[in-house]
Amino acid sequence: MKYTIGIDLGGTNIAAGLVDEENRLLAKTSVPTHAQRPWREIGKDMAALAKALLHQEGIDDSQVTSIGVGSPGTPDSKQGVVLFSGNLGWDRVPVAKELSRLTGKPVFLANDANCAALAEGKVGAGKGLSSLVLVTFGTGIGAGILLNGRIYEGFNFGAGEFGHMVICSGEEPCTCGRRGCWEAYASMTALVRQAKRTAREHPRSVLSRLAHSGEGLNGRNVFEAAKGGDAAAKGVVDRFLQYVSDGVVNVINILQPQAVLIGGALANEGEYVLSPVRKTAERDAFCRNNVLPRICCAALGNDAGILGAALLGR
Amino acid sequence: MKYTIGIDLGGTNIAAGLVDEENRLLAKTSVPTHAQRPWREIGKDMAALAKALLHQEGIDDSQVTSIGVGSPGTPDSKQGVVLFSGNLGWDRVPVAKELSRLTGKPVFLANDANCAALAEGKVGAGKGLSSLVLVTFGTGIGAGILLNGRIYEGFNFGAGEFGHMVICSGEEPCTCGRRGCWEAYASMTALVRQAKRTAREHPRSVLSRLAHSGEGLNGRNVFEAAKGGDAAAKGVVDRFLQYVSDGVVNVINILQPQAVLIGGALANEGEYVLSPVRKTAERDAFCRNNVLPRICCAALGNDAGILGAALLGR
Repeated sequence: MKYTIGIDLGGTNIAAGLVDEENRLLAKTSVPTHAQRPWREIGKDMAALAKALLHQEGIDDSQVTSIGVGSPGTPDSKQGVVLFSGNLGWDRVPVAKELSRLTGKPVFLANDANCAALAEGKVGAGKGLSSLVLVTFGTGIGAGILLNGRIYEGFNFGAGEFGHMVICSGEEPCTCGRRGCWEAYASMTALVRQAKRTAREHPRSVLSRLAHSGEGLNGRNVFEAAKGGDAAAKGVVDRFLQYVSDGVVNVINILQPQAVLIGGALANEGEYVLSPVRKTAERDAFCRNNVLPRICCAALGNDAGILGAALLGR
Repeated sequence: MKYTIGIDLGGTNIAAGLVDEENRLLAKTSVPTHAQRPWREIGKDMAALAKALLHQEGIDDSQVTSIGVGSPGTPDSKQGVVLFSGNLGWDRVPVAKELSRLTGKPVFLANDANCAALAEGKVGAGKGLSSLVLVTFGTGIGAGILLNGRIYEGFNFGAGEFGHMVICSGEEPCTCGRRGCWEAYASMTALVRQAKRTAREHPRSVLSRLAHSGEGLNGRNVFEAAKGGDAAAKGVVDRFLQYVSDGVVNVINILQPQAVLIGGALANEGEYVLSPVRKTAERDAFCRNNVLPRICCAALGNDAGILGAALLGR
């Protein structure tokens, strides 16, 4: 049996997983990134993590055909260099070459959101499809594009930034410097901000009570309050889901992939989110022959990054 | 010498052109479409037009290797069937098979905006590039996507509808039924609508004088008034160019093609449009490694459709 190793290099943790020829994630392990360290130390930890994983599973090094790394920011997948990553504080770091030197294996590199899209397309919710867009709704909005069964990166490795697509020109400021980005309206951070505003306007609402509780407002309890019938929360969630839908329909009108997958914390809400998004897409998408992309939730959760990285060398 | 024929099938005219192996458009001719006729009659006219073109240029039929057709709406390029076209009133019309039967040539079919993008990529402003997006600003906003040197159509042949990307969620109604589409803000039709509103608010402006002249307001004279220093017109054009830029930056953030080409009537304004769009892109595009797509005007004008159609068979 041959194996590949996938490494999901995050700003907080480095997670590694062992994947077999049938694309099954057999085991995984992780260590803290300590991103402020010199990058060579992080490289060393990545190599050690791979080695530990093999040892733990009783796999011989010779059975590993390649290692894949999913990194945040903008990696040059051809050269194996992380061109830029804010989370890691990296600027032109040749991480693939270094890891290859340390492990003796071919090392492949891609953006973490793109790895996740690849995994969903090969073994997840989009299994068997040749094109899909995975949109991850969490602190921000990340996205990965799969076309013809391959990651689409654009000419400068930066494609797929649907989160920084303006949907409300000139309005809400975004962390990227633009105003009105989808991320500023449809990320979980944006939901909580919208909920806080509404809580202040409706001091007797469940939303307001939650805002003043020890827990405070978060994506999960705002959705729960809406499902529980709180009018203020329902208003916030309905408007939020309209923003989510606006962006999803944009994705469809622009790329017409076979599927749009919703990932991240928002996917936890399942049909409560999918149903209104699908309804809006059926009404609004520019599909003159009425063949709509499938809209569903991502299937692999946090494993998508590791799995996709492991699949890079295939 | 071998040749291909390109046919640009429009709602008003059918235009055909003869293209040589070096991708030069040697001659063109056209007839009215009379779109309300049965589609077989339009097919006959397309065949007759091709024949007339050969006769006119003294080319023998045996020297023609293929015919390409660019149609409006949503053509299934694999089956050669126009699935839907509002302009032609067509529903599942097998135009390629019919034209092939009439001419004895292989016939290729694609969307007209996609043909134009292909032509710009092969012989126009994007010559030599493997990826580009051509956005045509006219009555509406059309767009074609070229990836890896090929037209990108999506799984249902409907991709590239950047005109129906929402940039102002919930605002201006669009002809497609959504609200806030780019087309409703950045088409020449939208510019004139914005200018009319402003003319009413500024009765002493040049804009208002133009609005009440026999000519009325149009894209060209609104731009001329702005260039001439009319404050009201300048306000309209500046805001309009912000909408244009918003959408162009969205195109960049999503696809990162090697070039974004501006076509249609807006391209007549040249640097007056390009300069602010480029400035906004430099400030707003999510290019962490600062490698921006080229932004320039399309080069082939109305010939792009014919040329691109002729290139389909290559």
